[in-house]
Amino acid sequence: MTLSEEFISREEIFHGRIVDLRVDTVRLPNGHLTTREVIDHPGGVAIVAIDEDDNVLTVKQYRYAFGTVLEELPAGKLERGEDPAAAARRELSEETGASCETLTSLGEILASPGGFTEVLHLYMATGLTFGSQHPDEDEFIDFERVPFDTLLRRCLSGDIRDGKTVAGVLKVYALRTLHKEEQ
Amino acid sequence: MTLSEEFISREEIFHGRIVDLRVDTVRLPNGHLTTREVIDHPGGVAIVAIDEDDNVLTVKQYRYAFGTVLEELPAGKLERGEDPAAAARRELSEETGASCETLTSLGEILASPGGFTEVLHLYMATGLTFGSQHPDEDEFIDFERVPFDTLLRRCLSGDIRDGKTVAGVLKVYALRTLHKEEQ
Repeated sequence: MTLSEEFISREEIFHGRIVDLRVDTVRLPNGHLTTREVIDHPGGVAIVAIDEDDNVLTVKQYRYAFGTVLEELPAGKLERGEDPAAAARRELSEETGASCETLTSLGEILASPGGFTEVLHLYMATGLTFGSQHPDEDEFIDFERVPFDTLLRRCLSGDIRDGKTVAGVLKVYALRTLHKEEQ
Repeated sequence: MTLSEEFISREEIFHGRIVDLRVDTVRLPNGHLTTREVIDHPGGVAIVAIDEDDNVLTVKQYRYAFGTVLEELPAGKLERGEDPAAAARRELSEETGASCETLTSLGEILASPGGFTEVLHLYMATGLTFGSQHPDEDEFIDFERVPFDTLLRRCLSGDIRDGKTVAGVLKVYALRTLHKEEQ
């Protein structure tokens, strides 16, 4: 069975600072027409930055959509045309003041593929050196160092809820564990 | 330092079938005004359903926003006022035909907390029995059984990109591994 959907027409609803919204009419495999609400997002990066004592850098920032402060990996949006690895180094430096010797890709995740085009590029950063934090003027961020094992358990308990943080920390845990088993 | 943002005013942009979009003006901790683009989403569920041979049920469906078929955990949106555990049983049955004896919460994840209110409730389902798949009329879904270890490695390699699938599978892996270590 073919699963694809054929584009018929587009209504552009909104062009924002961060997201755009369009409603496309498409033809389904059964010939029916339906609409797809698509939110276009530039994509972003998130970094599992680990210091030499096996602490992970996390940032706390107010998330207006949830009306609360969340603890997350350092992360940010891609600027137009920006290479994801360069964006990861830039965001890590802006939010925590850290630079890294080694940046390792942990792959991409799709935040919500049903209708949201955000692709998140995950990285692990090691060999950290610290300068000063320099967030954007209108960005208010505290950062912390959390022992890897503590952060892992907080991801599992539901205390850490941000999806990219859960995925990034658990990817590092699984890669470490499988690597140890294979030794 | 206080991190919170004060609501000033709202512009409602779009009310859709699935998402709503609003642009709120807020006051930042430094007194500056800015706008927050917020996409409201009803939230959803995703299920790591594991059969007695340690296969995980996955579904393949066309994701219009990415123009491709993705392989993901069975998942779906919450209906208005629906209990997440009931939604998990409903979606698992609709998409794969499976019912489960035991449904265990794996916690919540936030798909993209910067501006998207989607909360995903993750579950593990075991003790599966199979009836017939009965997706919505306009839903086209193939389902597969994938050995847990294979799916784990596909999540780590980047072959599986859906964020909720990566988070759910890696949570089960980490819980199993820590449980074994504690024995």
